[in-house]
Amino acid sequence: MVQLVLVRHGQSQANLDHIFTGWTDVKLTELGRQQGIAVGKMFADRQLQFTDVHTSYMQRAIITADLILDQIDQLYLPIHKTWRLNERHYGALSGLNKLAVAKQVGQAQVQAWRRGYTAVPPQLAQPRHERRYDRLGITEPTAESLAMTLTRLLPYWQDEIAPRLLAGKNQLIVAHGSSLRALIKYLEQIDDDQIDQVEVPNGRPIIYELDDQLQIKHKEIMEVND
Amino acid sequence: MVQLVLVRHGQSQANLDHIFTGWTDVKLTELGRQQGIAVGKMFADRQLQFTDVHTSYMQRAIITADLILDQIDQLYLPIHKTWRLNERHYGALSGLNKLAVAKQVGQAQVQAWRRGYTAVPPQLAQPRHERRYDRLGITEPTAESLAMTLTRLLPYWQDEIAPRLLAGKNQLIVAHGSSLRALIKYLEQIDDDQIDQVEVPNGRPIIYELDDQLQIKHKEIMEVND
Repeated sequence: MVQLVLVRHGQSQANLDHIFTGWTDVKLTELGRQQGIAVGKMFADRQLQFTDVHTSYMQRAIITADLILDQIDQLYLPIHKTWRLNERHYGALSGLNKLAVAKQVGQAQVQAWRRGYTAVPPQLAQPRHERRYDRLGITEPTAESLAMTLTRLLPYWQDEIAPRLLAGKNQLIVAHGSSLRALIKYLEQIDDDQIDQVEVPNGRPIIYELDDQLQIKHKEIMEVND
Repeated sequence: MVQLVLVRHGQSQANLDHIFTGWTDVKLTELGRQQGIAVGKMFADRQLQFTDVHTSYMQRAIITADLILDQIDQLYLPIHKTWRLNERHYGALSGLNKLAVAKQVGQAQVQAWRRGYTAVPPQLAQPRHERRYDRLGITEPTAESLAMTLTRLLPYWQDEIAPRLLAGKNQLIVAHGSSLRALIKYLEQIDDDQIDQVEVPNGRPIIYELDDQLQIKHKEIMEVND
């Protein structure tokens, strides 16, 4: 059996302010940092050991990963950073207040954008540009549904994570609410119309035990002692 | 022209306590963290941009690298961690107080061990074992001279750093007093009997501008505004 552990980053300033974030690189709050440390302490108690860590290009995920590794004394592990684990791109909603948007378009529409599988948020008129993507020749999306997020995440799973798990190496992924929901949908084969039931709270890790076909043999959602 | 930047980690608890450290994974002090942040702010002022970051398996170097990248908003960069950039292994001196050792064996002997090129510190009776090396099949050294440090560092320079510089990609190395001295000796072709003149202070970066043969065209030692 091999372990795959999923962690959503700690609370970000945008989480606190109820802002749609997506690919915007917001900072962790002090509570967010403490959540990362708390996850690390839980991992230390359980003596979890990893071979690799995978995270996105967003500092809220990268710093959460660092805080966890510091607690388990495994800072020396490789942290593989990829845009493919980025949060779903919220398009023109990025930076807007969730409550204000709900007042404008209704709670049902916001819920479809946030939790549905195929709903695409309003598109940006044109893609944003940042060095971190430009240098790779990546054009930033103008908006992504959860389905589109899974499509761009899957090659990374297939090429970088699954082969390491198949080689018996425990893997830690520190990513985002929606990019993890997309991965969980794939791993647990959740129906398109059921994925709106799945939430991934900040700092509550999921431990999967996988067999040599990467079938899930056990799933545990760790409870943080706040 | 391509840039190679060398940074020694910020002050560690062992630096503060005048302890021989080597491969012992000591923590940064609060001053050490501030030194990392100060280097990052200098890099931000200069708008330095890197493609890759290289560091050792020691948390004092890894965390310094993270603090710098945070300041220059380049946390998304790959941080390549390797034991080959570890500090020189101080053997049986590891954990001992420098002043106490000097009282016992004399300042000249301590100076030869600390600053000489071929002097090997007293050997450990047997190699220590840690998961981070065992999992790679690496036997920890029982002690290293500066020359031995260069020998084990050089393959990493040749295989991982030099090719990226030759491709025009700016590289940042965050490492240790002696592993950086070894690299500087190689890069600047310093004679064996002159290397005792070279010091690399905590948090004072060196910027090299290199030509397409990796010859040094310019060297600058940045001054921190404390």
